[in-house]
Amino acid sequence: MTEETLGSALDRLLDVASKRRGGDPDTSYTAKLLNDGTARCAKKFGEEAVEVVIAAAQEDHGQFCDEVADVLYHLSVLIISSNVDPADIAGVLKKREGISGLDEKASR
Amino acid sequence: MTEETLGSALDRLLDVASKRRGGDPDTSYTAKLLNDGTARCAKKFGEEAVEVVIAAAQEDHGQFCDEVADVLYHLSVLIISSNVDPADIAGVLKKREGISGLDEKASR
Amino acid sequence: MTEETLGSALDRLLDVASKRRGGDPDTSYTAKLLNDGTARCAKKFGEEAVEVVIAAAQEDHGQFCDEVADVLYHLSVLIISSNVDPADIAGVLKKREGISGLDEKASR
Amino acid sequence: MTEETLGSALDRLLDVASKRRGGDPDTSYTAKLLNDGTARCAKKFGEEAVEVVIAAAQEDHGQFCDEVADVLYHLSVLIISSNVDPADIAGVLKKREGISGLDEKASR
Repeated sequence: MTEETLGSALDRLLDVASKRRGGDPDTSYTAKLLNDGTARCAKKFGEEAVEVVIAAAQEDHGQFCDEVADVLYHLSVLIISSNVDPADIAGVLKKREGISGLDEKASR
Repeated sequence: MTEETLGSALDRLLDVASKRRGGDPDTSYTAKLLNDGTARCAKKFGEEAVEVVIAAAQEDHGQFCDEVADVLYHLSVLIISSNVDPADIAGVLKKREGISGLDEKASR
Repeated sequence: MTEETLGSALDRLLDVASKRRGGDPDTSYTAKLLNDGTARCAKKFGEEAVEVVIAAAQEDHGQFCDEVADVLYHLSVLIISSNVDPADIAGVLKKREGISGLDEKASR
Repeated sequence: MTEETLGSALDRLLDVASKRRGGDPDTSYTAKLLNDGTARCAKKFGEEAVEVVIAAAQEDHGQFCDEVADVLYHLSVLIISSNVDPADIAGVLKKREGISGLDEKASR
């Protein structure tokens, strides 16, 4: 009943990526990426980030939505490939909020 | 009581960025970025994506968590700057799931 | 008789890319990229830049040489696609030297 | 008397970067970057590559020239930081030409 948020979509991407680890590279693209290793996952994430930048600079909204969806998928795969617990990254963000609000970077 | 997930942190980043629009660039870094325009926000997102790639390639977990936190912050600002509703991006991801699962890219 | 420098290789890449403009996309990859437009050329350049960053971070010298070769090729195609005279970019670099040496960025 | 080419500018950037190695980080920006290490040089190169992509996507010719000048400077510093002989990269490009022309990527 509740609307889908981008955050809940990210959590699901992370959950699915986590379950694909060790899966069959022939039937799952995610399992294939994880099998190829972190450098390959980082490359794919970086490529999609470039596409987000281009779509943003061109103010192409439809393309931008597609590319952000792609970059979140590849970021999720990269997080899992790097053996990092997503909750640790949430903790970094939480800590920043706690100290000085989400604008804390202003003080850097 | 429930554990903070990375998705809920992302939703909060988006919510805060949205509220900073039109805010005072002198007191809020986020308001300053939004005031500078989308090309500037895209540049910051791209720079942080490069740092995620480097931290991943170097397998520096602590640095990686920091950089992913940064990239999600700057992605949130870029989404708001681009006047895109985060729910539309969630919709793109939902649709992909609906059709063929999160591995749908395998078929591209 | 003189040794090939990286600069002379770049000049040749630019010269060849320039000649491929309007060529047959079916027989020349360069003509195909130029035909696809600047956004596509920028995407390819950005992707190769990501690979340079990864190879550098991993200190993989052989891979690094390959990726820098790729990035110079795609930069050449992007320059031609953007209708920019390479001599104008050389002029920017020359001017920086003239003012304050190649270290001029230190003063920014 | 001969016109400055972008290639000759690149050769000079590489030559100067090479001479800055071990120089005083307080008086030379290039020496500072080299002193900071390859990951830092890769980060700077990646950031400038993002700016090239944005300027290209926005078709801002003046900005594009400036950003390409920057990216060539940072690529030169990264090559020197990586202890790679620029002639080796020229060799990669020469070899590709020898085999199948500069369009050889078409066959990949």
